[in-house]
Amino acid sequence: MTNTDTANSPRVESDIVQDSINAIRFLSVDSVQKADSGHPGAPLGLAPLAYTLWTRHMSYDPERPDWIDRDRFVLSAGHASMLLYSSLHLAGYDCTIEDLKNFREYGSRTPGHPERHDLAGIEVTTGPLGQGLANAVGMALAERILAAEFNDDENTIIDHHTWCIASDGDMMEGVTSEASSVAGYWGLGKLIVFYDQNHVSLSGPTDVTFTEDTAARYRSYGWQTLEVEDANDVQAIDAAIEKARAETTRPSLIAVNSHIGYGSPLVDTYKVHGSPMGAENVALTRERLGWNYAPFEIPNEIYKHWRSGSNNGTAQYERWEQRWNIYKAKSPALAQELERRFRNELPEKWNLEMPTYSTTDKPEATRVSGGKALNALAINMPEIIGGDADLWPSTMTQLVNRGAVSPGKWRERNICYGVREHAMGSITNGIMCHGGFRAFTATFFCFSDYMKPALRLAALMKLPAVFVFTHDSIGLGQDGPTHQPIEHLAALRALPGMSLIRPADPNEAVQAWEVATAHTDGPTTLVFSRQGLPVMDTTNMKVEAGAYTYLNGKDAVIVGTGSEVSIAIDARELLANDGIEAAVVSMPSWDLFRKQDRQYQESVLPPGVPKVAVEAGSPLGWHEFVDDVVALNRFGASAPADEVYKHLGITAENVVAHVKKLLDK
Amino acid sequence: MTNTDTANSPRVESDIVQDSINAIRFLSVDSVQKADSGHPGAPLGLAPLAYTLWTRHMSYDPERPDWIDRDRFVLSAGHASMLLYSSLHLAGYDCTIEDLKNFREYGSRTPGHPERHDLAGIEVTTGPLGQGLANAVGMALAERILAAEFNDDENTIIDHHTWCIASDGDMMEGVTSEASSVAGYWGLGKLIVFYDQNHVSLSGPTDVTFTEDTAARYRSYGWQTLEVEDANDVQAIDAAIEKARAETTRPSLIAVNSHIGYGSPLVDTYKVHGSPMGAENVALTRERLGWNYAPFEIPNEIYKHWRSGSNNGTAQYERWEQRWNIYKAKSPALAQELERRFRNELPEKWNLEMPTYSTTDKPEATRVSGGKALNALAINMPEIIGGDADLWPSTMTQLVNRGAVSPGKWRERNICYGVREHAMGSITNGIMCHGGFRAFTATFFCFSDYMKPALRLAALMKLPAVFVFTHDSIGLGQDGPTHQPIEHLAALRALPGMSLIRPADPNEAVQAWEVATAHTDGPTTLVFSRQGLPVMDTTNMKVEAGAYTYLNGKDAVIVGTGSEVSIAIDARELLANDGIEAAVVSMPSWDLFRKQDRQYQESVLPPGVPKVAVEAGSPLGWHEFVDDVVALNRFGASAPADEVYKHLGITAENVVAHVKKLLDK
Repeated sequence: MTNTDTANSPRVESDIVQDSINAIRFLSVDSVQKADSGHPGAPLGLAPLAYTLWTRHMSYDPERPDWIDRDRFVLSAGHASMLLYSSLHLAGYDCTIEDLKNFREYGSRTPGHPERHDLAGIEVTTGPLGQGLANAVGMALAERILAAEFNDDENTIIDHHTWCIASDGDMMEGVTSEASSVAGYWGLGKLIVFYDQNHVSLSGPTDVTFTEDTAARYRSYGWQTLEVEDANDVQAIDAAIEKARAETTRPSLIAVNSHIGYGSPLVDTYKVHGSPMGAENVALTRERLGWNYAPFEIPNEIYKHWRSGSNNGTAQYERWEQRWNIYKAKSPALAQELERRFRNELPEKWNLEMPTYSTTDKPEATRVSGGKALNALAINMPEIIGGDADLWPSTMTQLVNRGAVSPGKWRERNICYGVREHAMGSITNGIMCHGGFRAFTATFFCFSDYMKPALRLAALMKLPAVFVFTHDSIGLGQDGPTHQPIEHLAALRALPGMSLIRPADPNEAVQAWEVATAHTDGPTTLVFSRQGLPVMDTTNMKVEAGAYTYLNGKDAVIVGTGSEVSIAIDARELLANDGIEAAVVSMPSWDLFRKQDRQYQESVLPPGVPKVAVEAGSPLGWHEFVDDVVALNRFGASAPADEVYKHLGITAENVVAHVKKLLDK
Repeated sequence: MTNTDTANSPRVESDIVQDSINAIRFLSVDSVQKADSGHPGAPLGLAPLAYTLWTRHMSYDPERPDWIDRDRFVLSAGHASMLLYSSLHLAGYDCTIEDLKNFREYGSRTPGHPERHDLAGIEVTTGPLGQGLANAVGMALAERILAAEFNDDENTIIDHHTWCIASDGDMMEGVTSEASSVAGYWGLGKLIVFYDQNHVSLSGPTDVTFTEDTAARYRSYGWQTLEVEDANDVQAIDAAIEKARAETTRPSLIAVNSHIGYGSPLVDTYKVHGSPMGAENVALTRERLGWNYAPFEIPNEIYKHWRSGSNNGTAQYERWEQRWNIYKAKSPALAQELERRFRNELPEKWNLEMPTYSTTDKPEATRVSGGKALNALAINMPEIIGGDADLWPSTMTQLVNRGAVSPGKWRERNICYGVREHAMGSITNGIMCHGGFRAFTATFFCFSDYMKPALRLAALMKLPAVFVFTHDSIGLGQDGPTHQPIEHLAALRALPGMSLIRPADPNEAVQAWEVATAHTDGPTTLVFSRQGLPVMDTTNMKVEAGAYTYLNGKDAVIVGTGSEVSIAIDARELLANDGIEAAVVSMPSWDLFRKQDRQYQESVLPPGVPKVAVEAGSPLGWHEFVDDVVALNRFGASAPADEVYKHLGITAENVVAHVKKLLDK
């Protein structure tokens, strides 16, 4: 069974090791072949790395995939999903040969790219490049903070590594640069990233565009950099991992020089990146690597070898469990707290401290009220952690009396992400995937664009993170159109699984934070104003219903969200002067409103009554609910907020005109 | 007038130089003060740099701001807009004291962040951090390519520098990393970036998150890095610029150690970053810097000094004009061609080579037809240039018979951006802002998210770039939900100024490229299918109208876009079996349809006739046009495309059910 290609190599491994590596390769290649779709190149090249990691280094227990102190593994190069599925199968996770045979079939647990909810052992949904590495940074940060919070002098409860495999493509993505720079600042010593340096990407050799010295770049971020000259050299991989583990104050990047499609006739070409190799090439690869088994046939001794390595999963878990039992006996409250936090369960009294506002209070920007609500929640919810992209004096999301998370200050709660919105989003997803926290982010609404790929993955993974966006309209004023969101409400309302709330006043802002916090099976976007908004009466207020009638009126309905509810109220008064009785509906959340029963929906938006919406954003989507819209089909303008509203027609007068036009019909 | 703070400095400049520098400072500070809004810190710190650049190094002519061979300047740190406005004013551009006094007022030419169309001398709209530096890379690339294309041995027609000022925030943004890495690969020697290293950002000192060695990072990209120890040292700035100019094969990064808010009591604090300093602090700053003039008062000798520097703009232009006159005489065709290209004017016969398809042809993916159309245009339009984010074998956007733009191969037309979608978008904006090209980009539609900030700025700047996105729906199939766009059509339809076309077949794809090319006053997004689509009859086809009736029917209207038009046609046949005559409308573009007159609109979507839309994306927005929608309120799934369509209900049967339900009402 010895492979003739490597027979003369000084680093030849024993047959069982070679076979255990080749098992990954052929499970992967044969699954891709059966699906007639997929990426065989990376699993062929990286099989020795996966083998070394799973059998010699990673701490896990396939029987207990939710063990809180397991090592985390992130395949940032998500297209190499078969590498992961094959490894999980061989390692003994609940990933069967049937699962592998169903690769990329509808409803299977083995989709084209790994998805977090589908299979135990998949920590993160990956595929869009760059995300996984940034997620891994978030996981390593979560580990570091939890360790500082929960470990005591005698019992180490949280102490695990985060491993990540990243591709050339990951290294080119900006989000990777952002996340790696801040990881260097934090000095996350238990983050170990393998860079699959194969010099080939989807469309050809990488040297047509990617000639930077990536290792030097990582050193500039403050990382340790190591290199494995030959990805087939298990001992060299071993040695590099040991060096990486020994460095505890810096993250490590291990560049592994691999050959995409190793063993196949298409080795080192882009043709083996993203398409099945074809039956003939698969047969030739079998021959070259000396693999004589039928597709999906794995001899028992290979399973045995895989599952009896030095890191026998169950044994590792059992050692931890001993410590955990002592810890539980000694600090039962802390232990329960840790378990509660990993269940994403709200503590008792979580919302006891929420602020309330009276209609006699001064107007206040919802960003300010939102900040107060957040801080009120943080009093009873130590799992709340988060930060901003260098804008806290504007977003008002600083957790007061708490410092910045930084080396040596791991029990703090404010994360300074710098002007790195994208990494902020992706790191937040990583923190949430790790568990133990409810994480939030904050920046200007316009810059939600910079982190959209992360928002999408939060929704796809159903992570209960909270994404705060302030300065939510032309009400931002003089910074002008580059900073004034227009299309952003529509863009995020169209994102499946993302709840979005745009509160109209300080009281709605408080309720919005409560609804977002109680929503533990998916992400919420909170959209706050820069400008002060009058305090509304709470009698009928029902943010959790998505929309409610704030003021009654039989002739027409004016629907507003956020800062435009005030305009709707003004319009109602103007209409009253003309004997027209208009209702005002505040509609902070379309998605929450869609979840109400039809009777409630029709009580708020009665069929047959003319309805006009007013919102300082794109009109896109409003016709689902109303007959006409006062909104913006253009970019904003740089001027004081009142001026912009006036010149762009987001005014009570304009609403009145639209209502009258409908009534005239 | 000598400033006591710097009087003892060995680098003290003459009074007129100091005054000329302080003129920038106080025009800026007083404008911010008058607007009661803005960013005074950077202009105070960077005034000596701006002075040195404008009076000693930049090649420009204030009388001819559109001179094609002018140096380009990009203020990536757009919040420092007053630094730019003040410099333009002092240099003699059409930017008056009145303009400065109207800073941040509605309708003024001096908005909060610089906007390309507002004022001569503003090359790029900046503000969202990171964009400007990436735009500058695009400009420098455009210069390099045009120089190779148009200069002859005797006459250098295109030979200018691109200058950029970037902030700490710019350096943290991922798009900057992406663009700088590829700029290093290209070796853009005439790109010179100043990094305003002031160690303070909006919310505090940068060392709470940003401790990387930025210069080392830039060296890893292949840049020359230089440092100016003191931003007030004009001679050191001069010397660094000379070194940067002398390096012709690498871009240069000059780190300038500046003091944000220099001269003010708030120096070196974040408090002077983004808010007016207050009258008292302004007075103290006047005192400290020895500036005894009233707000907006500038003595004549300062104007004289500014406008008589070594780079007297008009003289520079005149030297170029001499060369240009010789060139025009010698190569009139080339000269006319260059002028045409800078006017964004279509050449004669631009669309003579477009492919046509007959209904007897085999089905073809619109990405394939789109690629053919693009190549047909490129035959007669040498200004077409563009590339992809490492996906050309999938996006089909390679320009055949043309190589990759790379060092020494500057006359090629394919740009390999690598897996750097965001930089691809922003560099494209830079190429378009430079002039001389019609640039396009290509990647999967799902990854439009990664470049959204650039798409937004293309729309805001009205740049006629073409953004191609393929694999436009769940029809992408087995790569699964991470790669299947859902909300993306809605997100880009909501973006003001962005035209979006999703063609239904190969013929519509060809027309879509023609419409996009003829649209010279704004950007177009073209959305293409991965899967093959049957060829449609062209008799009634009218992509430029946004929607048209493809098949008649009096009882109902089924509206489809892209790949779903085939489903609409199938549904029409099923309905015909039940005696229901449904029309089929193909609606490739909402924005183009909205531009039609009402009569046409009502002929296509007749009021009173039940209308159902079908689209494999979010339903958001469709209610503007139809009564009901067959669409997706969820993420996609990993399986062969047909399976996904079937399981997710994007089927003719489902359309039929929706039509019948409406008819039953």
